[in-house]
Amino acid sequence: MNLTEFNRKAREIRDDRVRGASELARCCLAVLAQAACEVPAEEITPWRALLLRLARELAVIRPSMAPIKNLVDAWSASVALDVVSDLPTARRLAAEAAERLIAHSRQAVSDCAAQAARLLGPGRRVMTHSFSSTVLKTCRLLQDTGLQMIVTESRPLEEGRRLAEQLSAWAVPTTYITEAQMALFVAKADAVLVGADSLLADGAVVNKVGTHLLALAAHEYGVPFYVCCERFKRWRADEPVPDLEEMASTELGVPDWPKVKIRNVYFEVTPAHLVSRWIDEAGVHDGIVEK
Amino acid sequence: MNLTEFNRKAREIRDDRVRGASELARCCLAVLAQAACEVPAEEITPWRALLLRLARELAVIRPSMAPIKNLVDAWSASVALDVVSDLPTARRLAAEAAERLIAHSRQAVSDCAAQAARLLGPGRRVMTHSFSSTVLKTCRLLQDTGLQMIVTESRPLEEGRRLAEQLSAWAVPTTYITEAQMALFVAKADAVLVGADSLLADGAVVNKVGTHLLALAAHEYGVPFYVCCERFKRWRADEPVPDLEEMASTELGVPDWPKVKIRNVYFEVTPAHLVSRWIDEAGVHDGIVEK
Repeated sequence: MNLTEFNRKAREIRDDRVRGASELARCCLAVLAQAACEVPAEEITPWRALLLRLARELAVIRPSMAPIKNLVDAWSASVALDVVSDLPTARRLAAEAAERLIAHSRQAVSDCAAQAARLLGPGRRVMTHSFSSTVLKTCRLLQDTGLQMIVTESRPLEEGRRLAEQLSAWAVPTTYITEAQMALFVAKADAVLVGADSLLADGAVVNKVGTHLLALAAHEYGVPFYVCCERFKRWRADEPVPDLEEMASTELGVPDWPKVKIRNVYFEVTPAHLVSRWIDEAGVHDGIVEK
Repeated sequence: MNLTEFNRKAREIRDDRVRGASELARCCLAVLAQAACEVPAEEITPWRALLLRLARELAVIRPSMAPIKNLVDAWSASVALDVVSDLPTARRLAAEAAERLIAHSRQAVSDCAAQAARLLGPGRRVMTHSFSSTVLKTCRLLQDTGLQMIVTESRPLEEGRRLAEQLSAWAVPTTYITEAQMALFVAKADAVLVGADSLLADGAVVNKVGTHLLALAAHEYGVPFYVCCERFKRWRADEPVPDLEEMASTELGVPDWPKVKIRNVYFEVTPAHLVSRWIDEAGVHDGIVEK
């Protein structure tokens, strides 16, 4: 992997509108593992400096997504602290460190889904918004228990289609709605379950825009609102609140009227007071306390 | 106008996704005016019976829209009470009654917009949802006062485009968003102004689906939520809550997945406790009291 190839892969991650934060964090680690093995270098010191520079670039490539920063930073720390002095061993250890973090992340997502499935229990009608791989795994675990799902299309790019298609393939009875219908349908749900792109230190949730509206509607009808995400998604209290990414206005598919500004913010913060329970790989929590 | 033509026009009104409740109510009256003049009849009694039957059909053709029922019922009452005995005069009087109600409805909408413009005042940033001809008239009155608008696309058929295009033509600085972004942007608004398809006796508002979410978000941020509609839109306390119309699921443009039910409910009820003020042709009200 040379720098041109690294930049191409970084752009793919930056422009990805399909995969969630955890999947993209693992993509970043896979890119770093490959870079560790392949970037041209003769000596260990410039090799390490280059890798840490590439890692810093990836860490901030999707500012709304804490797991990218957290997992890439964890990898950088292990590379920076590595004391071996021969380059081939250092390359191998750095790649192995990335693979371990990838495996750790996958396991954390599976454990989160298992906790969420246990909390929800069988025979429930569950509503979600947008696409979350953790929510999808939870549905997989509950698919034969009488689960019914209510899913949103999630404009502008309609990630909800991917979820509805998969649920249909698993024979889970599913209702598919526009975002505008969320208040009407949350009243029919036993619970709301959403994933997160990041979790702020006070328990507020960074997730696809529309999540705050769904949380307000769930609160209005007394429907529990659960957030399920692994601990890699936590933002530290001493870090600034992440930027909320805005994508191209052309995604809305409307003309360019002279006096009209078309906005396409992808993420928003749902405040902690609207969250009923936080689910992570360790269990179900009534609140989030900064470690 | 024969019955075939009447049925064609009735279907057009039933399937109309562009015009609001007041405009469609006036369309119904125009159809009845034409029918009064043109339906084949030799004697006044069968003529009147036929007209009243056609009016009953139109009265319920859009069950979410009170002004259609109210204006058509008002016309029917005047036709039923008419005491003239010659058919040509009866035809002329029935058509004139429809024209008077059309003029009354237009004036009421204009007066509502004037009241709303007075309440909002100059230089405001106002958010709305979907398309309302009353809100559009209010914008027209405020267009040179520094008004800025935030408008939603209003899936699935995106009536918000019509509003954004007109506001752009009037040089009103406008922000155009998906419904999912409503909570993010209502926080930036000075007020929300929506029209209504119907107003229930307790002040709850029947309007395009998504209105309840916007009202919840406005409430969360302490942004006043104003509803503006003429008195013809009031539903009486002794009438059942109207059906909320659902349109074809094909409007969402997604495949027909086997286990997925695609829902496309067009209207919802926003409860009165989320409304800050009700505006009608007579003024601005802190509550709705059934007359």
